[in-house]
Amino acid sequence: MNTYSSKLVENAVSELSRLPGIGKKTALRLALHLLKKDKAIAENLGTAIIEMRENIQFCKECHNISDSEVCEICGNQKRDKDTICVVEDVRDVMAIENTGQYNGVYHILGGIISPMEGIGPNDITVDSLVNRVSAGNAKEVVMALSTTIEGDTTNFYIYKKLKDKEIKITTIARGISVGDELEYADEITLGRSIINRTPFESTL
Amino acid sequence: MNTYSSKLVENAVSELSRLPGIGKKTALRLALHLLKKDKAIAENLGTAIIEMRENIQFCKECHNISDSEVCEICGNQKRDKDTICVVEDVRDVMAIENTGQYNGVYHILGGIISPMEGIGPNDITVDSLVNRVSAGNAKEVVMALSTTIEGDTTNFYIYKKLKDKEIKITTIARGISVGDELEYADEITLGRSIINRTPFESTL
Repeated sequence: MNTYSSKLVENAVSELSRLPGIGKKTALRLALHLLKKDKAIAENLGTAIIEMRENIQFCKECHNISDSEVCEICGNQKRDKDTICVVEDVRDVMAIENTGQYNGVYHILGGIISPMEGIGPNDITVDSLVNRVSAGNAKEVVMALSTTIEGDTTNFYIYKKLKDKEIKITTIARGISVGDELEYADEITLGRSIINRTPFESTL
Repeated sequence: MNTYSSKLVENAVSELSRLPGIGKKTALRLALHLLKKDKAIAENLGTAIIEMRENIQFCKECHNISDSEVCEICGNQKRDKDTICVVEDVRDVMAIENTGQYNGVYHILGGIISPMEGIGPNDITVDSLVNRVSAGNAKEVVMALSTTIEGDTTNFYIYKKLKDKEIKITTIARGISVGDELEYADEITLGRSIINRTPFESTL
């Protein structure tokens, strides 16, 4: 006998459990939830997923997800096109945008170099970044990758590719998080925060 | 500016985060995962969800999910139609089926009476169960609800409705789980397992 007593449910559970972090049990719970609720909820969900995947575009400048050929950020006349912030994925763009502290544009690598996961330089958008810089479209490249081995490898690879161009290459500041206590900070972070100390500004 | 830089993604995230246990962050992670993978994966997922919700049927006998008017269990000539096991939802059916120890049919209530969540007797399939029993279609009703206040309330409500019918009403055995140590068992379970002790059978 078919454990799910319905091929339709079995199929939905099987597709749902392909999603990362969703096992068979959770998938079944989600499927049964959708069966209990209005038809419209399942239909909207299914349609939203299909339409997103069908119609999504990636900005031809920065590779950000977009509903048009050029994303809202690259298309915005008020943004500073001379500063390019290099990030791993779209979530990093959202995080930086949420700070309201950055007015430049982005370059989304779509991953970081990771031999362990079989991701090489050609699997991410490094060439496209080099082309943007070579075309004279930038004065500063701000590296904003995570400080893991993979992030450092990618940083170094990109640095080598860009170091002969006439641009400034910077990296986001590493230091003690605002609100964190010094005694709990790791030595490397604390060390860097002393080396890269900044002029005192009263916040009062 | 739109935080998601794409209405399509925003829409998919909003629909995904309606699912139980999935917040905005997880929904975004799932949406970006679907964007990275083949189109076919998102399409199969969307279609499976829509088709399941569109075409699912509920067995007219036991209310189990089904691809046809009568579910595979009720439609199976080899199952004992005289014994009806009353459960809360479809997952309980799967759990009992997996034991391979039950050959009767089921009755899926579709919930349990819970004033806190606004679920009353009319929101679950009690009347349909009473009709099945009244029509002379059962010799035994096995109650298999959880031992919570809601489960006990529902048990009692159903018991009152069925007690004058000429059937046996039983409940699944409560006792110490196989493999559990007595010293960690709660008193009520241990007490019940003594009251309802069974003849010794050697398992060797």
